[in-house]
Amino acid sequence: MTNDLLARRARFLGPNVPTFYDSPVHLVRGEGVWLWDAEGRRYLDCYNNVPHVGHCHPHVVDAIARQAALLNTHTRYLHEGILDYAERITAKFSHDLTQIIMVCTGSEANDIALRMAQAVTGKTGLIATDNTYHGNTTAVSQLSTRRPPIGGYPPHIRRVPAPDSLAPLGGSLAAQPQEFAESVARAIAELEAAGHGFAGLMLCPIFANEGTPGIAPGFLDATAKVVRAAGGLILCDEVQPGFGRVGSHWWGHEFLGFAPDVVTLGKPMGNGHPVAAVVTRPDIMAAFREAFGYFNTFGGNPVSCAAASAVLDVIEAEGLVANARDVGAYTTALLGDLDHPAIHDVRGFGLFFAVEFARAGQPAPDIAARVVEAMRERGILLGRGGRAQHILKIRPPMPFSRGNADEVVQNLAAILTEISA
Amino acid sequence: MTNDLLARRARFLGPNVPTFYDSPVHLVRGEGVWLWDAEGRRYLDCYNNVPHVGHCHPHVVDAIARQAALLNTHTRYLHEGILDYAERITAKFSHDLTQIIMVCTGSEANDIALRMAQAVTGKTGLIATDNTYHGNTTAVSQLSTRRPPIGGYPPHIRRVPAPDSLAPLGGSLAAQPQEFAESVARAIAELEAAGHGFAGLMLCPIFANEGTPGIAPGFLDATAKVVRAAGGLILCDEVQPGFGRVGSHWWGHEFLGFAPDVVTLGKPMGNGHPVAAVVTRPDIMAAFREAFGYFNTFGGNPVSCAAASAVLDVIEAEGLVANARDVGAYTTALLGDLDHPAIHDVRGFGLFFAVEFARAGQPAPDIAARVVEAMRERGILLGRGGRAQHILKIRPPMPFSRGNADEVVQNLAAILTEISA
Repeated sequence: MTNDLLARRARFLGPNVPTFYDSPVHLVRGEGVWLWDAEGRRYLDCYNNVPHVGHCHPHVVDAIARQAALLNTHTRYLHEGILDYAERITAKFSHDLTQIIMVCTGSEANDIALRMAQAVTGKTGLIATDNTYHGNTTAVSQLSTRRPPIGGYPPHIRRVPAPDSLAPLGGSLAAQPQEFAESVARAIAELEAAGHGFAGLMLCPIFANEGTPGIAPGFLDATAKVVRAAGGLILCDEVQPGFGRVGSHWWGHEFLGFAPDVVTLGKPMGNGHPVAAVVTRPDIMAAFREAFGYFNTFGGNPVSCAAASAVLDVIEAEGLVANARDVGAYTTALLGDLDHPAIHDVRGFGLFFAVEFARAGQPAPDIAARVVEAMRERGILLGRGGRAQHILKIRPPMPFSRGNADEVVQNLAAILTEISA
Repeated sequence: MTNDLLARRARFLGPNVPTFYDSPVHLVRGEGVWLWDAEGRRYLDCYNNVPHVGHCHPHVVDAIARQAALLNTHTRYLHEGILDYAERITAKFSHDLTQIIMVCTGSEANDIALRMAQAVTGKTGLIATDNTYHGNTTAVSQLSTRRPPIGGYPPHIRRVPAPDSLAPLGGSLAAQPQEFAESVARAIAELEAAGHGFAGLMLCPIFANEGTPGIAPGFLDATAKVVRAAGGLILCDEVQPGFGRVGSHWWGHEFLGFAPDVVTLGKPMGNGHPVAAVVTRPDIMAAFREAFGYFNTFGGNPVSCAAASAVLDVIEAEGLVANARDVGAYTTALLGDLDHPAIHDVRGFGLFFAVEFARAGQPAPDIAARVVEAMRERGILLGRGGRAQHILKIRPPMPFSRGNADEVVQNLAAILTEISA
């Protein structure tokens, strides 16, 4: 069956379409933190942040079904849905982040964020880390492409070294925040010398794809000063930490304690329904809307707004931010008790966990890979991150419980006893 | 109420967010070709091609609700949904267009199509008409921006004069196809001289945004030869003509009679659910997937595929392509009988109609604008297109009936008697 599906994928989707696991999982059903494959086997989902309030949450499904049966149009007509959602979501932000553009994907949101920085500053230069990912449009993928783009790397983009937990910038975790800020300052100087000028710095506030290396409150203080002094914008991609995942706060930037100029939202926003957004200040919105005549046909349609609004309902009704805080701390402590010589570090930010493997100070992606495959065999789905893919990425749906955490850590412990360092 | 909504839009969405009509319509419900506003007034929808099989079609709503309650994940796991849809939709294409990438919006699809041309050719140069629109990402909007982008117009894009029905390229409608081809040839030569080389030409096969000016089978034959001779690709945006709207065929390029290398699908594909796609040949797909590590989180998710598949079900079960052909011809004939000195031309392509207004050979956008507003007051929603916005754009959902056509044309006739030329 799986082989048949892989053959059909190759036939209809072409080559190099990524799948997870040596033996890809063929899913047929989801509920809460659980997924089932075609043979009836149950998996604990510890990877997917799209089903934020749990797979197939009935409140979200009902909201989608009801609105889809009633009306689905676009924002060139008036509708309360987008306004009610806008009012509700912008109330979750401070720093005058009071206006929104609704789109369909995080990539579309980040594509807009880059243009907002350019519209405000009149400059084109953009900075991101050299180990990040912010999306798949032409403009956004240029921030993170690892293969040389056709026509060469665009000169208005500079990549700065990503924070690293094994080989910290500046030689130590303590020195890393300042060294990161200085590398941003160097990139800004290069962009200005080259005539592009500096428009903005895009980052995930917990550096999720980089493996959350040494991230703690205050990490970006020095960098924020550098960006401000240069007149640029901080574009904060909250696709992974947002919507309460970090537990301590609704947004990753609140946890770190800095004020972004533009925030982008994606994956968790509609629990799987394709909806995303850009939230910003009125002055930035006005500059963007003056410079670009932006319209998105599906963006902010009544069904997307109903889905997104239902997600907020569930987060609030089920106390999922508090759950992320509580179960996050509980899980981080359990992970911290794991005993294996190749565990370099364990980090938790609410319901986002990193278990980093190294040998003699070098990344050990082979161990991370073995763990991911062995966990899949034991019915637990998780993934990897970090520059060397040596860090377990554990990022479950928000209803993840202490019992789920016990199951994960017990299985991890059992697997690690079988893996020599 | 409407004023309150407009004030809330300004507050939460910022300035320059487009609405239709002097007095925007506040919609609350849709069914088939009908929409209702908050005061219970009914409107005949003659504009929206997103609700392709009719607003809130129960078969599509049911498919979305059922799949959303069962499972919604991404393509890194295996699922039949995307494969079944891929098999079904690629069967609607010839010319070896057998592989698909599913995304969320037509903009994302076109953003990929441009990169496919660049991946295949190794060149960057792109051509589009100077009066088109293919989407809102940074890369795609550069094809059609009317405001100078921050940092200036990108040098690898050339805009050729759009076909025109009032002032045809080359001086006559008969000369226009050849003149269009020659302007494409000149743009290719410029791109090659500038060192960008030529990657591809993107167009809508019925030049919908340009107002369908003088389009007929064979229109692109000369252009296709020019593009082939230069080694470039034809990127065919079927967002407007596709899914049977042209009545005579499933796709606009079949009606015109040329073989595109890449086809993009959007708005009608999911009847309002955010789903879109790129369909191409295996050699082009392989080149793209070799050059770009593309993944789209929401693209091809099981719910999107269920929605898209349900749309195909309805098109087939309700014979909507035949209906487009029949009612399209009927409506075109009725529109052709309208008697007003400012009507320069009436054109119909299945259920896509253009009524072009001019005075003394010059576009008369004032008349088109008055008609659109007066029709809205009479409960009929339509829009405008063409370079001067002087052409009525009538593009109803596919279940549009002869009775609906009678209502539209009777009201148009009544309005035109009140408008002096």
